[in-house]
Amino acid sequence: MTNDTITNSERNGVDTATLFATLDAVRGAPAAAQFQFRAHNEWVTGTHSRSTISDFFGVGEERAHEQEFVFDADHPAVLVGKDNGPTPVEFVLHALASCLTAGIANIAAARKVELTEVRSTVSGDIDLNGILGLQDVRNGYQNVSVKFVVKGDAPEHVMREIVEQSRNRSAVYDVITNGVPVEIDVEVG
Amino acid sequence: MTNDTITNSERNGVDTATLFATLDAVRGAPAAAQFQFRAHNEWVTGTHSRSTISDFFGVGEERAHEQEFVFDADHPAVLVGKDNGPTPVEFVLHALASCLTAGIANIAAARKVELTEVRSTVSGDIDLNGILGLQDVRNGYQNVSVKFVVKGDAPEHVMREIVEQSRNRSAVYDVITNGVPVEIDVEVG
Repeated sequence: MTNDTITNSERNGVDTATLFATLDAVRGAPAAAQFQFRAHNEWVTGTHSRSTISDFFGVGEERAHEQEFVFDADHPAVLVGKDNGPTPVEFVLHALASCLTAGIANIAAARKVELTEVRSTVSGDIDLNGILGLQDVRNGYQNVSVKFVVKGDAPEHVMREIVEQSRNRSAVYDVITNGVPVEIDVEVG
Repeated sequence: MTNDTITNSERNGVDTATLFATLDAVRGAPAAAQFQFRAHNEWVTGTHSRSTISDFFGVGEERAHEQEFVFDADHPAVLVGKDNGPTPVEFVLHALASCLTAGIANIAAARKVELTEVRSTVSGDIDLNGILGLQDVRNGYQNVSVKFVVKGDAPEHVMREIVEQSRNRSAVYDVITNGVPVEIDVEVG
């Protein structure tokens, strides 16, 4: 019985019992869902900088990831950098892909659908005349395209509904499509 | 003379001669500035997925970074994940910090300002009642805050103008504050 319960609870690597328990807990104490995420960045040289991601706030207290994550960003040579990391705009695409994919896994698990594969390519078109200040075009992506391949044990329309529900509940999709106010403070040392 | 030229051209790790030559080249051939960036993502298990960033299009042809970059994303245990990487929304903060910082270095170099330090903390407030579907709040960040410490050999008002100009020309700042249309296609295998 215990083994059955464990087996039934885990699907797609998602512990659905914990997922539903978390939902119930937040339903009873909505303030637990107030989170603040952070990245600490330090300029290295040229277009090369490095971010550390570790501390965050959630469920009422300061927390930290189990390890500190460190990421470099840079420009390739063709954009006058040294290619020590992806460009900042490429990290946006990774964020979108990983957010939608995590949602697909959770939602499929909650709907008792076993996934066997989820792959995506996210691409963004950008006219660098904007950031170069040469033409009056926007600085950022003009459009972003996500192409998913999903495989699992549900009919096609159910698989499509799962992706659609992930879009409906994706934090990064919301940020990218709807925008967020950004405040910048500067201390000159 | 040659050494002087090299010394004068390189500032903040930015080769300003190359930067200005690139600007001139794109001014003469604006189509060179049409880029497409990409991330390829694969689900691992649960909320854990992995992106590969390598190929991109720019200056009229398919290109690749000098190395393939691979990044994991996951949720922490408190969000029913295994903490194999930062959350997708944290990568958005890294993207913003690194984009603004690269711009600061480029703009300072173009204005003959020597930087000694650029640090930032980017934080984003998010109410997870949105993605959990428990309350009618947005899924993404409600606001994002960037706190810069910048040091260099220019007066304070010049340093502030450099940061402001970086904001005016930042691709990721534009994406996050103004939003971008995202199209999602699904192939069910």
